Amino acid sequence: MSKEQRAALRAELRRAPQPEGPRSIEELRAGFRALMAQMRIPDGIRTKTTELGPRPALLVEPAGPDPAPRPGTILYFHGGSFLLGSPETALCLTANLVVRTKIRALSLDYRLAPEHPFPAAVEDCLAAYRALLDAGEDPGRIVLAGDSAGGGLTVTTCLAARDAGLPLPAAIVAFSPGLDATRTGESVDSKAGDDPFFTRDGLERSGALYLAGQDPRHPLLSPAVHADPAGLPPMLLQVGTDELLLDDSTRMAERARAAGVDVVLDVTADVPHVFQAYSGSLDEADQALDRAALFLTQHVR
Amino acid sequence: MSKEQRAALRAELRRAPQPEGPRSIEELRAGFRALMAQMRIPDGIRTKTTELGPRPALLVEPAGPDPAPRPGTILYFHGGSFLLGSPETALCLTANLVVRTKIRALSLDYRLAPEHPFPAAVEDCLAAYRALLDAGEDPGRIVLAGDSAGGGLTVTTCLAARDAGLPLPAAIVAFSPGLDATRTGESVDSKAGDDPFFTRDGLERSGALYLAGQDPRHPLLSPAVHADPAGLPPMLLQVGTDELLLDDSTRMAERARAAGVDVVLDVTADVPHVFQAYSGSLDEADQALDRAALFLTQHVR
Repeated sequence: MSKEQRAALRAELRRAPQPEGPRSIEELRAGFRALMAQMRIPDGIRTKTTELGPRPALLVEPAGPDPAPRPGTILYFHGGSFLLGSPETALCLTANLVVRTKIRALSLDYRLAPEHPFPAAVEDCLAAYRALLDAGEDPGRIVLAGDSAGGGLTVTTCLAARDAGLPLPAAIVAFSPGLDATRTGESVDSKAGDDPFFTRDGLERSGALYLAGQDPRHPLLSPAVHADPAGLPPMLLQVGTDELLLDDSTRMAERARAAGVDVVLDVTADVPHVFQAYSGSLDEADQALDRAALFLTQHVR
Repeated sequence: MSKEQRAALRAELRRAPQPEGPRSIEELRAGFRALMAQMRIPDGIRTKTTELGPRPALLVEPAGPDPAPRPGTILYFHGGSFLLGSPETALCLTANLVVRTKIRALSLDYRLAPEHPFPAAVEDCLAAYRALLDAGEDPGRIVLAGDSAGGGLTVTTCLAARDAGLPLPAAIVAFSPGLDATRTGESVDSKAGDDPFFTRDGLERSGALYLAGQDPRHPLLSPAVHADPAGLPPMLLQVGTDELLLDDSTRMAERARAAGVDVVLDVTADVPHVFQAYSGSLDEADQALDRAALFLTQHVR
């Protein structure tokens, strides 16, 4: 429908100056904040800082003339390679889900590497989910959503919750999730010329900071290739074809399907990593967000 | 969400008496009519017999107190192994799409084997699509939808239209499509114990009547394994895991994705072939139809 929009975004991202040479983690974090600050935040929400378990979180609620909020909670995990980002950098995504579903979100400020390598992030996400349950929330009204590294955390938090004997949330929505720290997907090499954000070198360098010497074949590091997804809730995986991480999603979908999980694998051609962030300027972004919102509302009791 | 409903349907289908011994084509057609007559037709439609190109068709329009029809046409192709069925047997599916989208459907009574083997069905579907174009319909407002054999026809009609130099429709929605006459999908054997409707023998016997000695590796017979899907419109493939035809969809999705087509592969666990027909009694059926309706409306201009 918007081949021109896709082509224009592709060209724009290719023209964008790539930072040269190694940068400090603080420079990387500032650069990511600046990039994500360009994304459009939709009207119709209000935000408030809060806490969830041991960590800060951002509450994102429907607001405006006709809020009519629906029951439930979207527990959101932001992206940023486990090194960067915060609930604020993912606000365009979280807010778009809240506006479309009228369900509130709690976006978690989980601990980041290199200061806090694996499994700190998963521990924080599981603690946040447990805090919701402890507060009396019905797990059938909790859904997990996230992008990139945070998309990976939606899956690994469910695995950890299952293994801890907790009742599971109602659904998972993941935008371009990172689900394979072993980097064995074909797309890691085959999409090298198409991905405007990642290179194998870059993925391996940032991945090493999160791994901190640990074996990447851990199921909570590489669920697409080393986890047993049996019992997980229905999941929607959205991914673009201009992505080194494409096969993180295709292999996770295949694995989950084989384990008896309901899976929607939703692939948009010629768009980059977490293209949903271009809501408002790329039709495919808004259409994908509409599909994600329908999926969430279908599964919240 | 409705594990109990899925389990109950599974048990019911396993208890259903299987017809014994060979039956004539007329007996098979009557049996299929009787089976599909049990499915619930939703309120909110009116139907009228008409013609489309050289063939009869059933017009299914939104009706009722607030019809507010949307522009566009769903060109629908019924299921029945290319041997059985009609617009009436698929009415529960067609009507559910019309009610949800408020877009009219034209459901085609294409020629059936063994009287009219391949490529009669594809010729009729292409002629119907061409008739819509000739009548001045905007291809950006035509979507193709179908189930089982008719799901396969949504894809092959697009391939034939592309190869004939016609402008393509806006989207494809296929429920449990048959996309491989070579029967080389793993699921044809691995799902043998789970599929309440099909066996390899049965597929091969009915397939032979449609093939009539022709090579099953023709791209319009086995698009999941032998077609180049480049240029096809966005497609949504919905399939259950209790299906010999599961890998018709998984391989079509993979092939289309690799060719740069937008593909949503939407798999529901533990449900049978064309489970959407159980709308009204199986929550997964209605949820899948809601996702299909959103997908269609997103792509109709």
